[in-house]
Amino acid sequence: MTIDLALVIDLVGVFFFAVSGSLLAARKGFDLVGSLLLGSMVGLGGGVIRDIILNVGPPAAFTNPVYLVPPLLAAGVVYFLVGGVERVSRLVLAFDAGGLALFCVTGTLKALDTGMNAIAALVLGVTTAVGGGILRDVTANRVPRVFDPQDLYAIPAFFGAGITVLLWHHGWLNLITGTIAAVVVFVLRLLALRFHWHAPLAARSWARPRFTRG
Amino acid sequence: MTIDLALVIDLVGVFFFAVSGSLLAARKGFDLVGSLLLGSMVGLGGGVIRDIILNVGPPAAFTNPVYLVPPLLAAGVVYFLVGGVERVSRLVLAFDAGGLALFCVTGTLKALDTGMNAIAALVLGVTTAVGGGILRDVTANRVPRVFDPQDLYAIPAFFGAGITVLLWHHGWLNLITGTIAAVVVFVLRLLALRFHWHAPLAARSWARPRFTRG
Amino acid sequence: MTIDLALVIDLVGVFFFAVSGSLLAARKGFDLVGSLLLGSMVGLGGGVIRDIILNVGPPAAFTNPVYLVPPLLAAGVVYFLVGGVERVSRLVLAFDAGGLALFCVTGTLKALDTGMNAIAALVLGVTTAVGGGILRDVTANRVPRVFDPQDLYAIPAFFGAGITVLLWHHGWLNLITGTIAAVVVFVLRLLALRFHWHAPLAARSWARPRFTRG
Repeated sequence: MTIDLALVIDLVGVFFFAVSGSLLAARKGFDLVGSLLLGSMVGLGGGVIRDIILNVGPPAAFTNPVYLVPPLLAAGVVYFLVGGVERVSRLVLAFDAGGLALFCVTGTLKALDTGMNAIAALVLGVTTAVGGGILRDVTANRVPRVFDPQDLYAIPAFFGAGITVLLWHHGWLNLITGTIAAVVVFVLRLLALRFHWHAPLAARSWARPRFTRG
Repeated sequence: MTIDLALVIDLVGVFFFAVSGSLLAARKGFDLVGSLLLGSMVGLGGGVIRDIILNVGPPAAFTNPVYLVPPLLAAGVVYFLVGGVERVSRLVLAFDAGGLALFCVTGTLKALDTGMNAIAALVLGVTTAVGGGILRDVTANRVPRVFDPQDLYAIPAFFGAGITVLLWHHGWLNLITGTIAAVVVFVLRLLALRFHWHAPLAARSWARPRFTRG
Repeated sequence: MTIDLALVIDLVGVFFFAVSGSLLAARKGFDLVGSLLLGSMVGLGGGVIRDIILNVGPPAAFTNPVYLVPPLLAAGVVYFLVGGVERVSRLVLAFDAGGLALFCVTGTLKALDTGMNAIAALVLGVTTAVGGGILRDVTANRVPRVFDPQDLYAIPAFFGAGITVLLWHHGWLNLITGTIAAVVVFVLRLLALRFHWHAPLAARSWARPRFTRG
């Protein structure tokens, strides 16, 4: 049951992140192969990093071919359905938020199932959630979204990973509660984007600079 | 025998990729130490990623000191023999193509020898082949070559990994057939560069943009 | 005893690198969460890469929560104490030098304790020392410091890793000699910065170009 929960949510999360990667590939002028590669990298990267850190054998993304389906689907959807450039940046953010929301839950769950302690599971869940997006942005040669000071990115992921740890420790984690946790994270992230919620800057006394990305 | 094949082709592949890294270091104005580091990173990076994913103990690049010889040779060759800047970009591409061709064969073979299924071995072979170059370009702060839509990069690697899986499953893989597979990939890559063969763009309806790199 | 030495020096090294990451985050205009993430990435990244390559189970940075203390401290120190932008670039270099000095000793020691041969331990010590800084600079979208040809970066780390291997093989490695080795590396690095010591360029016959970073 727990495994099914992980696999179902995980594949949906891979799809969301893969769409964000394929959309970015389109915006950057990459070709269909680049779209598939960048989508795979962001969709599967966070989970691969998680599995490598957990050190429990080859990552599921490589041993289980079903993980290749979401990136293929994503590249196809973007190829056939994306019409104009104007809404793409916003779509990247929306699908990225979906991946973030699902991966902070599944990443934490996978770490807990492997026997990691609560703090390690929390940190690893956040790593899974933000890892793929960092890979995507670094590869596309721009400053990762997680560092944009105009809104909140990692804090919703921390929140979702924390909820997952709590639910798991009380035995309340199942497909429904896990999905609710992910939806809460997704909504938090979209609200942060919409209303420009932001955290204090890294140095207290500095003026908020104009943040630019590649 | 299989192991010897892997080691021989692997070391030649490391040398080719390492030359591409040291040449890029020269073009970027790095020093001799940076040339050795960037050459090592691209030459050994793909294999280290492969071995970490296969989870079969410390990567060969670290446990077997012979793997350090090709990057040292490459840095030396570039230091003494590279005369002018004009042909370096083309040389980077040629040596990169050699590394790509050999690594898609050896990466796939290593994965098959470790017991991975055919699809996983194919994906891991391509990862090995393109991984080092992505590390090189990301580190040198430019968009990885694999995303350049003007020619084909990953498709020849997919092709080579596929041939290797087929040869291996029929028991026909040896030093000769493996080398032939690598040569075919190398020639495909050079033809794609020469004649600007390219794949469709990531979004069907968009115009082909001007692709720029760092 | 050896383990205590490793942990003590390791945590101080994590703190130094984390401060360099949080300072860079401040200079780049990231927020407090970005400061914590970038500090964690540079502070813990080198050790995580080392532990993944050694393949000895989940990295200590994830299983032992004490490793999260230095990045939290570093983000706090930078938040409250950094006043103006003018001296930050120099502070990044100084703290980076401290992390480099300590990690080339602890990285080598950890590899030797795990049974790696002398050459592998040397290479892995240097990888640990330069890995975090490469992650930091690549993530912040600039060419890694290790490739700056105006001074020496990797050579002091090679030197420190070499001394550590020698001390260990003669049974002379302890808290005092290890600290002395790190101090020597730190001083070498600062002298190289101050007096612009540099290595030959990657290609012998080229003029030294103007090196620019992001």
